Amino acid sequence: MATKNDISMVGFAIVAYAGDAKSDLIEALNQAREGNFAKARELVESANKNIIEAHNEQTSLLTQEAGGAEMDVTFIMVHGQDTLMTTMMFKDQVEYFINEYERIAKIEERLDKAGL
Amino acid sequence: MATKNDISMVGFAIVAYAGDAKSDLIEALNQAREGNFAKARELVESANKNIIEAHNEQTSLLTQEAGGAEMDVTFIMVHGQDTLMTTMMFKDQVEYFINEYERIAKIEERLDKAGL
Amino acid sequence: MATKNDISMVGFAIVAYAGDAKSDLIEALNQAREGNFAKARELVESANKNIIEAHNEQTSLLTQEAGGAEMDVTFIMVHGQDTLMTTMMFKDQVEYFINEYERIAKIEERLDKAGL
Repeated sequence: MATKNDISMVGFAIVAYAGDAKSDLIEALNQAREGNFAKARELVESANKNIIEAHNEQTSLLTQEAGGAEMDVTFIMVHGQDTLMTTMMFKDQVEYFINEYERIAKIEERLDKAGL
Repeated sequence: MATKNDISMVGFAIVAYAGDAKSDLIEALNQAREGNFAKARELVESANKNIIEAHNEQTSLLTQEAGGAEMDVTFIMVHGQDTLMTTMMFKDQVEYFINEYERIAKIEERLDKAGL
Repeated sequence: MATKNDISMVGFAIVAYAGDAKSDLIEALNQAREGNFAKARELVESANKNIIEAHNEQTSLLTQEAGGAEMDVTFIMVHGQDTLMTTMMFKDQVEYFINEYERIAKIEERLDKAGL
């Protein structure tokens, strides 16, 4: 049986993992903006590792609850779930930002080369 | 009076609707990346239908609680709320991604036509 | 000790602040799409003020809970936390959308000037 305290500890762990992932994703966008696309994709990979850790923590809790365990919901765990889910959605979008930056950068190069 | 189990059932329903919506939104971005803008917008419409279903479920629950009903919060329902809210935010952003892809594609065409 | 009602009041306050922030962010994207970049950045600043208000409300609650206070989680407060966290993530992404729109607009100008 998980106590409120145990559950908040899981919340803190998720906030930490997802927070690290979010920092990597923002840095990935900064790198893509500067034209460093390989570095950007490396950072997305790194973010993904932390997301998987956080996701495993959440899945374990949801599985216990779905299996009938009585779980006391705490705001800290809710905050963990929010942080994870917004970061996962961010990650899904980051690849399209990177792809757009890549096409924009290629266009700028073509214009520069043509002296326009 | 909604039992914990009833509430988790609502959570599962929301996760399912919002999950379908999210898949459509990601496919919309893939289509926009490939230049298929009409298909992309069709997928956003389809996503929107599932979002409305999920949103109605959430609104019903929030309204009952605001009206004084005692509701036991479960992690599964919290997960449903997260899934819905991140998907709604995703949908708000998708139209700008599509619009940017459209302008990028038009620019690429102009450059190709000019042989640059 | 915060009652369920007190906590839901905090939830409503967060939904209101974060909702105003979200409206400003969407308008910021609309302005950026039309090429009004100064106006877009002004709106992001305005959104940020409301996000800070909402964030302070959430932090106060999380701090009380982490300090050992017994807090009853309500769906309305969960909805507040979701609304805040998705809006914060939106704000983080908006600056990259604006930056991309700016580069796209500049490219379009170069092409127009070259008569292509």
